[in-house]
Amino acid sequence: MFPLGRSPRLRPSPYFDKTVEAGVSSFTVYNHMLLPSAYEGGLAEYEALINAVTIWDVAGERQVEVKGPDAARLMQYLCTRDISKVEVGQARYTFICNPDGGILNDPVILRLADDHFWMSLADRDILLWAQAIAFLGGYDVQVVEPDVSPLQVQGPKSIDVIRTLFGDDAADMRYYRFVETDLDGVPVVVSRTGWSGEFGYEVFLRDGSKGGWLWDRLFEAGAPHGVKPAAPNQIRRIEGGILSYGSDMDDRVNPLELGFDRLVAFDSDDDFIGKAALTRVKEVGASRRMMGIRIAEPLSGNTTLLPVTVGGELVGRIGSMTWSPRFGQTLALALLDIAVAELGTEVVVEAPEGPHTGTVSEVPFVDRIT
Amino acid sequence: MFPLGRSPRLRPSPYFDKTVEAGVSSFTVYNHMLLPSAYEGGLAEYEALINAVTIWDVAGERQVEVKGPDAARLMQYLCTRDISKVEVGQARYTFICNPDGGILNDPVILRLADDHFWMSLADRDILLWAQAIAFLGGYDVQVVEPDVSPLQVQGPKSIDVIRTLFGDDAADMRYYRFVETDLDGVPVVVSRTGWSGEFGYEVFLRDGSKGGWLWDRLFEAGAPHGVKPAAPNQIRRIEGGILSYGSDMDDRVNPLELGFDRLVAFDSDDDFIGKAALTRVKEVGASRRMMGIRIAEPLSGNTTLLPVTVGGELVGRIGSMTWSPRFGQTLALALLDIAVAELGTEVVVEAPEGPHTGTVSEVPFVDRIT
Repeated sequence: MFPLGRSPRLRPSPYFDKTVEAGVSSFTVYNHMLLPSAYEGGLAEYEALINAVTIWDVAGERQVEVKGPDAARLMQYLCTRDISKVEVGQARYTFICNPDGGILNDPVILRLADDHFWMSLADRDILLWAQAIAFLGGYDVQVVEPDVSPLQVQGPKSIDVIRTLFGDDAADMRYYRFVETDLDGVPVVVSRTGWSGEFGYEVFLRDGSKGGWLWDRLFEAGAPHGVKPAAPNQIRRIEGGILSYGSDMDDRVNPLELGFDRLVAFDSDDDFIGKAALTRVKEVGASRRMMGIRIAEPLSGNTTLLPVTVGGELVGRIGSMTWSPRFGQTLALALLDIAVAELGTEVVVEAPEGPHTGTVSEVPFVDRIT
Repeated sequence: MFPLGRSPRLRPSPYFDKTVEAGVSSFTVYNHMLLPSAYEGGLAEYEALINAVTIWDVAGERQVEVKGPDAARLMQYLCTRDISKVEVGQARYTFICNPDGGILNDPVILRLADDHFWMSLADRDILLWAQAIAFLGGYDVQVVEPDVSPLQVQGPKSIDVIRTLFGDDAADMRYYRFVETDLDGVPVVVSRTGWSGEFGYEVFLRDGSKGGWLWDRLFEAGAPHGVKPAAPNQIRRIEGGILSYGSDMDDRVNPLELGFDRLVAFDSDDDFIGKAALTRVKEVGASRRMMGIRIAEPLSGNTTLLPVTVGGELVGRIGSMTWSPRFGQTLALALLDIAVAELGTEVVVEAPEGPHTGTVSEVPFVDRIT
């Protein structure tokens, strides 16, 4: 791995100093912000994640705030899901598509009020997309990046940490619900969401000056439960079939290719960007499909997209790959031509270690704990 | 410095393998792409840049291509400069602003035909902004990211390298002109532009599969002239007052605060996004101004924005700072409250090494070689 040159252009998160104290060993860049990508390493962090509780600095999941009289109308035009069905206090995973149905982002959206939303972003400047649509569309809304910096608290013991700090109402929420609350007067949103596949929460800090303080409070509350700092865990999220924007999808991929037809509101009366294009795809059927691949041999994680072939012909590409200690296999998430996207098909993974035979399988490999 | 965790989300450039062979020692991330940020280090690379010739992988300067019947009309609406005055074969430095006049990007644009433009971007996803405006505005254009990957060839001997490979027409172009040409049939654009302040060129490769080959050809042609691989050089660009998006400006800064009134087409009959807001700023006068600061002591380059104070009160912030071997001083680019933005004013730079007195001065510190 090469060193990352620091620059004011790459913002430290409000938790940066604490992550350094906690032993962060590498960073990535996410929405122009430094985001920890490892501490002890994926395998050690995986063990803490599935057995205890881990805390992740994901402030790089920047928020786009949409607020004002036309907020719901703009959100509906931007998102593929039916926004009228999202209640205040509810979060939803959605796609933001371009007019061709290509995916621009796959945020979790939170409805804070009838006229107030956040989009918790994957790595792309959706602020510009949303501001441009709001501006030319004449929507009466504010579209800004608020001072909001999420942490993820993930793992089976996360419920104890959240109960200690935020009480029963927060700890006992249903999946994809959230509450607006505070910790000693510092405003936060606590949600039952996360990118791990394990039981977990996110804590959205609404005052960037309190990052170090909040980090310490969470680790104090987590100490009796074996809390560890961790990065977004590639092993567990690939086992859980959780996709990463920029690796598993981009604007040349549509939601139907990912098998997410149910996240596209085809039956809604409301229009949204990409609806017409996606309706055409639905009529003729997607030409590719996101599938799992299992490989018997241990292969290293991929740092670029990897080709998948059958009989020497390119039939798809792998966006994410990891060794799974749970299965003793290498698991991959692959976008495959529909002809080979059948359970049990044998394919060849063109890995840096050389070609390896794999078997097409269902995703997720492991059900999510909700 | 921390290691940068690799991910398929952070694309390698077409020159990646060659930069590794050439001894790259750190990377940054720019428009979701790995971009070399050092080889031997800023000082050694500075010497090669001002005395010989350096080649930089800046493929992370991704292009937005705008092409079609309404291309000029869309470009005018997006850009603060008068597009009607940009001839085919001409490049221009421009701002892209939001409706409040805040800067979203400061690309170099190239007019390849009456109805065909590139925007060579700083680090932000302007593709989304331009696609959204084109879509809702109903412009008859294609807005895409083409397969174009620039290298910079910078330094006094760059003219010899370009003459060897591309002939006299390319070598002898005037500043901010370009030609569409090829090297052994591989299509490129060669322009008299660059981000160094020194005499130089950019070579825009139009076939990403030929990156390694083009790199080798340029280094072969440069060998007699002492060519070295280099990263964008912070010392020389700060001496030259060349600004870096995300450090020296962002969407909370407007072009008038940077002293770039002449790059805003106030007198044009055409509208563009931000024109009304910038006209109001012009009427009342900008409240801040980009100035230089000279500090006698050697200070390290800044990795975050640094506060500037007078009598303990915050009066501005430094986006870029470097030790200058030419002056034997530390030089900074600072956005200062208009009341202190006067030549000779003494200010305090709140550096990581502690507070240091500086003197407000003009920028650029060194004239650009055009």
